[in-house]
Amino acid sequence: MSNIVNVGVIGLGTVGSSVVKILKRNRKEILAKTGLDVRVKKACDLRDKRSVAGSAYTKNVNDVLNDPEIEIVVETMGGVTPAKQFILKAIANGKSVVTSNKEVIAKHGREIISAADNAGVQVLFEASVCGGIPIIHALRNSLSANNIKEICGIVNGTTNYILSKMSGEKFTFEEALKQAQEKGYAEADPTNDVEGYDAMYKSAILAHVVTGGFVDLKDIYREGITKISPIDIAYAKNIGYVIKLLAVIRNDGKELEVRVHPTLIEKDHPLAKVSDNYNAVFVKGDAVGDLMFYGQGAGGDPTASAVISDILEVACTGSSCEGDDCCGDDCCGHDHALAPMLKLKSMDNVKSRYYIRLETYDKPGVMASIASVFSKKKVSIREVVQHGSDGSVAEIVIILHANREKDIQAALKAIAKLNDVKKISNVIRVGID
Amino acid sequence: MSNIVNVGVIGLGTVGSSVVKILKRNRKEILAKTGLDVRVKKACDLRDKRSVAGSAYTKNVNDVLNDPEIEIVVETMGGVTPAKQFILKAIANGKSVVTSNKEVIAKHGREIISAADNAGVQVLFEASVCGGIPIIHALRNSLSANNIKEICGIVNGTTNYILSKMSGEKFTFEEALKQAQEKGYAEADPTNDVEGYDAMYKSAILAHVVTGGFVDLKDIYREGITKISPIDIAYAKNIGYVIKLLAVIRNDGKELEVRVHPTLIEKDHPLAKVSDNYNAVFVKGDAVGDLMFYGQGAGGDPTASAVISDILEVACTGSSCEGDDCCGDDCCGHDHALAPMLKLKSMDNVKSRYYIRLETYDKPGVMASIASVFSKKKVSIREVVQHGSDGSVAEIVIILHANREKDIQAALKAIAKLNDVKKISNVIRVGID
Repeated sequence: MSNIVNVGVIGLGTVGSSVVKILKRNRKEILAKTGLDVRVKKACDLRDKRSVAGSAYTKNVNDVLNDPEIEIVVETMGGVTPAKQFILKAIANGKSVVTSNKEVIAKHGREIISAADNAGVQVLFEASVCGGIPIIHALRNSLSANNIKEICGIVNGTTNYILSKMSGEKFTFEEALKQAQEKGYAEADPTNDVEGYDAMYKSAILAHVVTGGFVDLKDIYREGITKISPIDIAYAKNIGYVIKLLAVIRNDGKELEVRVHPTLIEKDHPLAKVSDNYNAVFVKGDAVGDLMFYGQGAGGDPTASAVISDILEVACTGSSCEGDDCCGDDCCGHDHALAPMLKLKSMDNVKSRYYIRLETYDKPGVMASIASVFSKKKVSIREVVQHGSDGSVAEIVIILHANREKDIQAALKAIAKLNDVKKISNVIRVGID
Repeated sequence: MSNIVNVGVIGLGTVGSSVVKILKRNRKEILAKTGLDVRVKKACDLRDKRSVAGSAYTKNVNDVLNDPEIEIVVETMGGVTPAKQFILKAIANGKSVVTSNKEVIAKHGREIISAADNAGVQVLFEASVCGGIPIIHALRNSLSANNIKEICGIVNGTTNYILSKMSGEKFTFEEALKQAQEKGYAEADPTNDVEGYDAMYKSAILAHVVTGGFVDLKDIYREGITKISPIDIAYAKNIGYVIKLLAVIRNDGKELEVRVHPTLIEKDHPLAKVSDNYNAVFVKGDAVGDLMFYGQGAGGDPTASAVISDILEVACTGSSCEGDDCCGDDCCGHDHALAPMLKLKSMDNVKSRYYIRLETYDKPGVMASIASVFSKKKVSIREVVQHGSDGSVAEIVIILHANREKDIQAALKAIAKLNDVKKISNVIRVGID
């Protein structure tokens, strides 16, 4: 590959525009460091983005996809349609692809990567998980000596911002969401973030990076943050916890867990201190121990930093294998077969500690009857805190030891039916084990 | 390069032994992930380490250096002599070198890397800075789109453990050091750690990674932690700071600063929360913004994780350039010339905020005369806190705004001469700007 690297960009929104801008601004420094002169030859968007891309601007995506001089196509438009089609077309035309698009990789990564393997090109997607944090590269390369046992990530900046505001400034969910929207951290329709879809896509990608296989998204347990109330945050704080939306990937070598849900984290855990719209990924490897990567998980420039590092990696390593010259499973890891689909551990069998907030009628014997139900279902209680009573109704927080989800759910069902229990207000998982 | 990668290890202490152990334990997984079958063919130590290395064990270093089947020599013995000589011999014999040895790279990296460039082999040293944290790889590859403006690192676990114990458990320096020694975090002679030499080596290596040049170690400002007292830690805490030993590399594109000294860090800064023997490196890039990498900066297994990632990188990328086939300055970055020696910004001109603790005779007008000296030297005061008085002597803490080192030192000299000032007890830099 020559020193000049011609790149085509599809999608000139926040990320794509930053890619164009930074490649221009830091061109000399990148050339000095890597010997590569990266040029944006064409940049496509349906909106007029001449002000961003200058003479490279085009409205016609085929100007990017069919340009024989373009070696690398950067896809920064997001979404599945038509991004997937453009990516596959670029691959078919012998171009490597760098993308920041978590949804298309989470949903169609298996097909896309297989197509790239067969075409002898690369598909890299560092920017699809946690923006500027080089977590994929770290897992793939820097930590390849390790069996990765667990990844716990704050991978969605919007929800972390909302939870931080609810915690620090006692905002309600709605107030915090409104501020996030005003700051541009949340979209007008925040569903994708607050219901955990975005985190789910990222968890699927991280699971792929760690295992080489793919996960069916509908197998991933997903719970957003809309049920978290300022009361839960305050009660959690009282007993030494903060609440974060976590993506959890756990691999004991036999069974794989992938799940997204709010979690009470001990206040001294490094993840507990990750606030505002920052992201962080906590990794446990069997050799390296505990590692954490912290940074801006979104935004044009940080995400562009990751996109450009992928461009440079493709340009430096070249096509990893081509047709008959393929290196087999050496280094590139390609066997040109579809990656396996992974079976996840049933959520029923996942063990967690739990925080349970419930309202009970304030009568003698209430705790005894609740405790008795837990005991029958073999669920063990760690801590009970009563948070006052208005004379007739008391609010109680119960922290459970680690128990199987199935047993917890059965116990909660039975507890909800007790005459003395008015309602189970919230149930949140506790801790990183 | 074939699928089998023969490695020779020199030095079977904590790190070398872990390298041998983990390569054996995770051999299958590494093969599955990378297609590389990494084998320790020879492992050398003067002590009998048959129990660690089995039939690969040898007492004779030439069995490693002269084995034509060994492609990569791992140097994990530490120190300059004879490590440097072994590294250069391995290079001369056409072998790439992976080392965890910060001292030899900080002192002789320029010569070693030049020798490797000329021999067409690689020298990698991820493990030399912050053990298992893949900071060098991140700076070199994942962040290559960025101009790195600043690196602030807690890069020495021993001093961080001591400062954490002094802060959390109110230990004196001596008590904390003793506990660190008992836990194996500090050596019998702790000079290298507590006086900041270890952090200085790492700062020089980080400066090299960021700039491509080398720094003369005697140009690096270095201050250890032996002067930090529990009183300073308590006073700092009162005004919202913790004290950490930082390695600071700052590059504004014109002048380069490299220095190691204790620093008051605001308690909400991510680095402030890095405790015990953990390391963390905070990086500011012009695109990526703020990033932090956190993990175990020492210990056999974490450091071995970094050594093995370098082994796999060498094995995967092969010799980056050889003789006439050299890629010039493309990708490998080699120009086969000695890397430049870097001139550092004079410490006189470095700007910092300062914490100054002094004892004064408790008389009217003391603060006025101190303030007048600062004012004459154009040093501006941000905050003054008087910490009680025994009737005759008062302890005062002064926080200064950012000022040039030269002006601060001149002011302090004049203040020390004031009749009302009994002594200047401590002077510590404040903040990460």
